[in-house]
Order: sequence, then structure tokens, then C-alpha cells
Amino acid sequence: MQPTAHLSKDYDADLLALRASVLEAGGIVEYQIRYALEALRTGDRALVARVIADEERVNAFERQIDEACTNLIARRAPAANDLRFIMMIYKTITDLERIGDEAKKTALAAREVRLNERRTPGFPEIRMIAGLAIDMLRRSLDAIARLEPDAAPEVARMDRELDGHFQSIVRQLLTYMIEDPRTISPALDLVFVAKSIERIGDHAKNISEYVVYMIKGRDVRHLPLEVMETVVRA
Amino acid sequence: MQPTAHLSKDYDADLLALRASVLEAGGIVEYQIRYALEALRTGDRALVARVIADEERVNAFERQIDEACTNLIARRAPAANDLRFIMMIYKTITDLERIGDEAKKTALAAREVRLNERRTPGFPEIRMIAGLAIDMLRRSLDAIARLEPDAAPEVARMDRELDGHFQSIVRQLLTYMIEDPRTISPALDLVFVAKSIERIGDHAKNISEYVVYMIKGRDVRHLPLEVMETVVRA
Repeated sequence: MQPTAHLSKDYDADLLALRASVLEAGGIVEYQIRYALEALRTGDRALVARVIADEERVNAFERQIDEACTNLIARRAPAANDLRFIMMIYKTITDLERIGDEAKKTALAAREVRLNERRTPGFPEIRMIAGLAIDMLRRSLDAIARLEPDAAPEVARMDRELDGHFQSIVRQLLTYMIEDPRTISPALDLVFVAKSIERIGDHAKNISEYVVYMIKGRDVRHLPLEVMETVVRA
Repeated sequence: MQPTAHLSKDYDADLLALRASVLEAGGIVEYQIRYALEALRTGDRALVARVIADEERVNAFERQIDEACTNLIARRAPAANDLRFIMMIYKTITDLERIGDEAKKTALAAREVRLNERRTPGFPEIRMIAGLAIDMLRRSLDAIARLEPDAAPEVARMDRELDGHFQSIVRQLLTYMIEDPRTISPALDLVFVAKSIERIGDHAKNISEYVVYMIKGRDVRHLPLEVMETVVRA
């Protein structure tokens, strides 16, 4: 499903440009997460600086996309289909900006701790959930690129899985803290990193749900997975 | 400043109803925070259940307000002023719903730990930052009620203060954990509660910034406090 084709080529171009912008911002935040994790592993300060600099770019996208959405609505008085598309983009950029914030917090943690793949308990698990969160984000962005709602149930399932891993990472880190008080400070840093990744998963899930709303006109937030699947298949 | 008065009484009534709904949702989340803190102090299960039940009410407000915003835009093709008002409400309800989520997480922590005002290190400080976050939220909601942008710089200052307190609470809890490993598990619960309150402050700040955008047409997010003050006074 695509937004309605219009007599005005400019209008179509504006809608396509809006989608291209939000996907570009999505690409930047995906790499912010990747670089933040890499910075945690290697302690590379240049990567930390890159993630921080990219946050400014994402903020700029947020301002520009918000303004473009409001202007398009004011100038074009969009019909139902296009209006839902614009509102979906308007919400998505907010979640992308918040993902960028969480990636930045993760990168900043790399200035405090250098994590060792083999010696830091919990770090392999954190890389695993980060991989899961990136996968969720990619599926949600792909849903926007294709304007298909089908990713949402799978992303919701992955979010449950991520939440479960998050809980077990925290329990595991807690055990290390109790067994060896020297690990308390770095383990607490890892708890915050895990928390950021868990939040990123929530935002990716939100985005996939906005796409369902756009295509199906049904708000599936806070609904059981089974209901979401029925809506998506309908 | 008020939204433009219209020839249609229905339209005015719709805009007023939208504002009343978002303020009502705001009142619910304010009490979710208060009850969650009280549940932490007293271990009162009925309060925990109340906060969880209220989350459903806030979710329902979010669905209803999102739909009302989209419908109003589709039916009325609002002019600049009203459109900015509707977009402000559309963003605000998302932040309110996320505040409700954080309050729920805080209430759920009360099922794990019962905090003692005098014996739990860090708890008085957590009550203090919760008071600050509630104050920020009230100022932001009041800005919507009055449609005045002047709260934003003060709320931004309070957010800085809250972030500083949050950092020092985490450092303090870290010290207790290291000195007495028996405190590790409850202290980690408190770290998460402090983190939720810090997030609530961020959301309150967002709301006060949306009001500036609505009234002044200037997006002051991510800008220095001095710039925000100049915009608000202009």
C-alpha cells in the first residue's frame, strides 16, 4: 500500500521526501547504536565523538521533519490516508530521536569503562541484546520503506524476548556484584547500558505499531499480540 | 494567548475538549507518581494495583486523544495556530503515557522492596527528586491550561537540577553497595526508581517545550537555556 497518488507532483514529492528523511535519520541512529557498542568494546574515543556528533544530526532531522509534517498538513489539507502517513512519520521521528539519546548515553559510558569481551561478565549478553534491538529497528524502518504492516507482530515478539534477556542480564550482574564487590561499579555501568538497549527495543516496537496504524487505521498499541496479528492479517 | 476563535461553536468545543482530555490524563499520571512513591514507602499493595489500573486509563486517553487530533485535522483543516495547538496536544499525550509507564515501573518495584524512610539510604533523596519531577509536570500542564510559554525555562532549569541529583543519588547508592554488599539488591532497585524519576523529568521538560512551539512557533528543543529564555520573552 502506498499513499494516494495525487494530481500534484509536488505533493507526491513532498511525501516521498518526508519518508526518505525519516529513513535517513533511522540509518544514522542504527549506526549510533553500532558505534556505541563498538566504543564500549574498544574504548575508541573517536567513535564516542562520532556518536555524540550524530546526535546533533538526528536532532536536526527531528526539527526539520516536525516542521515539514506541520507545513504539509497546513498547505495540503491531506485526506485520511496521507494524514495517517504524515502522523506516522511525525511520531516515528520522536522515537528515533530518543533512540539516538540512548545510543549517546551508551557511548558516554564507554568513557568510564572499557569492557572486555572475555573478561567482563555480562558484556557478550549485552552485545546480543543490542543485536536484537538493531534487528527490531531495521524491521520497523523497513516497514516504513515498504509501507507494510507485517513486521509489527514479529517486532513485538522480539521485544518480549529482549525484555526477558534484560531481566536476566540484570540478575546476572547482581550476582557478580554480590560475589565480588570490585565489580560493582563497572557492573552498574553495564546495567545502565542494558537499560538503554531495552528502551531502544521499546522505541522500535512503537515505530512498527505506528506503521500498522497508518496502513490499517487501527491503533494496536497496548493490545495483546494475538489481536495485533489479526489486525495485520486482515 | 488562546487558539483562534471560530465561527463554528463545535470546533471551539472540540479544541477545548482536547485540552481538557490531555489535562485530565496529566492529572492521572501525576497521581500515579504520588501513589507509586507512597507504595514504595508503605508497601501498600492496593496503591500498586491502583497505579497499574490507572495505566490502562492513561493508555485509553492516548488512543482517544490521538484519534481526536487526527479527526479534527481531517475535518477542520485547521489554520496555523490551531494546527500547532493540535500537534502540541498530539505530542504531549505520548509523553504523558510514558510518564505513566515509569510510574508503573516504580510501583512494581514496591512489590520487591519496602523502603524505610529512616533506614533505607537514598530513599529521602528519591522522594525529593520525585517532588521535583511532580513540580515540573504540574508547571508544564499548567502551561497548557493557560497556553503560556513562560514555564519552559524554569522547567529546563529544574531538569538540570534533577539530573544532578540523580547522578549524586547513583554515586551515593554505589558507595553503600560497596561498603555493605547486603544493600546491593535493594540499592539496585532504588537505582531503577531514580532512573524512572529522571525520565519523568525529561518528559515534563518535553511538554513545556511543546507549549513554547505552540505559542511562539519556535522549536526550542536541544537549544541552550539562554536561547529558550529569549524566545519565551519575545
